[in-house]
Amino acid sequence: MEQRLSLITLGVENPARSKAFYQSLGWKPAFEADDIVFFPLNGIVFALFRRAALDADMGRENAGPGAFALAYNVRGKAEIEPVLAAAQAAGGAILKPAEDTEWGGRSGYFADPDGHAWEVAWNPHWPIDAAGNVSMGG
Amino acid sequence: MEQRLSLITLGVENPARSKAFYQSLGWKPAFEADDIVFFPLNGIVFALFRRAALDADMGRENAGPGAFALAYNVRGKAEIEPVLAAAQAAGGAILKPAEDTEWGGRSGYFADPDGHAWEVAWNPHWPIDAAGNVSMGG
Repeated sequence: MEQRLSLITLGVENPARSKAFYQSLGWKPAFEADDIVFFPLNGIVFALFRRAALDADMGRENAGPGAFALAYNVRGKAEIEPVLAAAQAAGGAILKPAEDTEWGGRSGYFADPDGHAWEVAWNPHWPIDAAGNVSMGG
Repeated sequence: MEQRLSLITLGVENPARSKAFYQSLGWKPAFEADDIVFFPLNGIVFALFRRAALDADMGRENAGPGAFALAYNVRGKAEIEPVLAAAQAAGGAILKPAEDTEWGGRSGYFADPDGHAWEVAWNPHWPIDAAGNVSMGG
């Protein structure tokens, strides 16, 4: 298994509502159908899939937003609060307001309409290139 | 918010156990501490974080593997079964054996030691470049 990822799929109650949420944050879908919406990101694809259909596809029933988080790293410390505010304005919930971290950065969390967690972080140790890719150490 | 992702963090009971699982699949960590392990992927970072620490970090308690899936797309249809077999040999569980899909591909699912779902898929419509990045449409 090569050290790479292709796709992240979030199970959502209402794909249209979730699509509108991510569009409010500035993202544009590349494909949509009744049950699924695809957003191409930096080399991976982000999918919103009707939860019952995802459950059936992966062969088990699920509940809740789960023990995981996605993260969006910003290029400057002052960019965190505006992203959290935009998420809240779009119908998301603030899980944790931005605060300085012990590792020398700053971070906050919001939840999307289904409770999936997103960290919004500034990490001065992980450079972000023009294509939006992060690298460790710098 | 630019249309990109920086990091995926899975909450795990035992970071050493989870690290060993992903190492068994051929991945190499770039950094590790008691509570966290980082694997650099294609432009994003994959993290295994002790669940209690992730819960505290994101400001809420969580349970279970949740309604989401990560996906690893293979370059050839015959590569799916070996990846599923390797995951099972490493201590993962097969959620769904590989089967042909209605969208013209083939896919199966495994769960990692904490139950987080991974799809292993062959999608002839989404090319994979040398760096391991997928693109939609081809």
